[in-house]
Amino acid sequence: MASVRIREAEEGDCGNILRLIRELAEYEKLSDQVKISEEALRADGFGENPFFHCLVAELLPAPGEPQGLSVVGYGLYYFIYSTWKGRNIYLEDIYVKPEYRGQGIGSKIIKKVAEVALDKGCSQFRLAVLDWNKRAMDLYKDLGARDLTEAEGWHSFRFEGEAMRELAGK
Amino acid sequence: MASVRIREAEEGDCGNILRLIRELAEYEKLSDQVKISEEALRADGFGENPFFHCLVAELLPAPGEPQGLSVVGYGLYYFIYSTWKGRNIYLEDIYVKPEYRGQGIGSKIIKKVAEVALDKGCSQFRLAVLDWNKRAMDLYKDLGARDLTEAEGWHSFRFEGEAMRELAGK
Repeated sequence: MASVRIREAEEGDCGNILRLIRELAEYEKLSDQVKISEEALRADGFGENPFFHCLVAELLPAPGEPQGLSVVGYGLYYFIYSTWKGRNIYLEDIYVKPEYRGQGIGSKIIKKVAEVALDKGCSQFRLAVLDWNKRAMDLYKDLGARDLTEAEGWHSFRFEGEAMRELAGK
Repeated sequence: MASVRIREAEEGDCGNILRLIRELAEYEKLSDQVKISEEALRADGFGENPFFHCLVAELLPAPGEPQGLSVVGYGLYYFIYSTWKGRNIYLEDIYVKPEYRGQGIGSKIIKKVAEVALDKGCSQFRLAVLDWNKRAMDLYKDLGARDLTEAEGWHSFRFEGEAMRELAGK
């Protein structure tokens, strides 16, 4: 089995990342909502004050196997701010291609996010998961996460589109 | 009744904001979790690359009433990144002192956030609310928000403390 390395994404990874973003949205059955472009990812993630950071899981072929690296997963995060604890991290997306699951790649991404969080002085990181995605929920719980919706009753709300424009009087 | 103005917070508001952060945490029955200081708010919110932005609701006394402005609510937000839609806003906290509720101050803060979001090219803003806080949930729904936990099954997860350090191998 090829080994996997988790590394920080570079601008040249944006094409691969966008393909994985689309795959994740398909997996979540919400692929019609993806409006982002490769150009936007390049501009937003790799400028002077990037809006996000990204880790990629890269396959390193064993000696003798065909050459050529391949990105099989990603974790996209940004810094948020808790008025209780200060600066923290939000892991917006985490995804591993279906044919590479069960090898601990998701856990490796999560562990790398925990490392980054501690290195940056963050005391926590958050993420969101769909309740039918039992496999992901179980993984996060096994790794020590707390389900705040279940434990404390937190619900996520979103304003958008026409409702938001009406609110803004525009 | 005094009128209320929603304006961007200034560094000098941090003492008032911290008092309101503590009141909100008490209201959420989670006040032991507040570790932030006024100094941290000043440094994190009012430096060159602020980690958050804040709106305050300020009471303007009617002519003839005693002078002196007073901050009776706040909304603290930051920019996040959706891999579907690009840059967006997260409203981390919204709070109005109990004795000033029922006057539409919360709605005014939400409307101002919607304005900021549109001005900054964001297509949405998100927030989280505790399920027993019916009054807040009803307000957000009335204003056009969608409960994503109810509608799509999103659960919030958090890694922190010992679990996070173990993950990071530290």
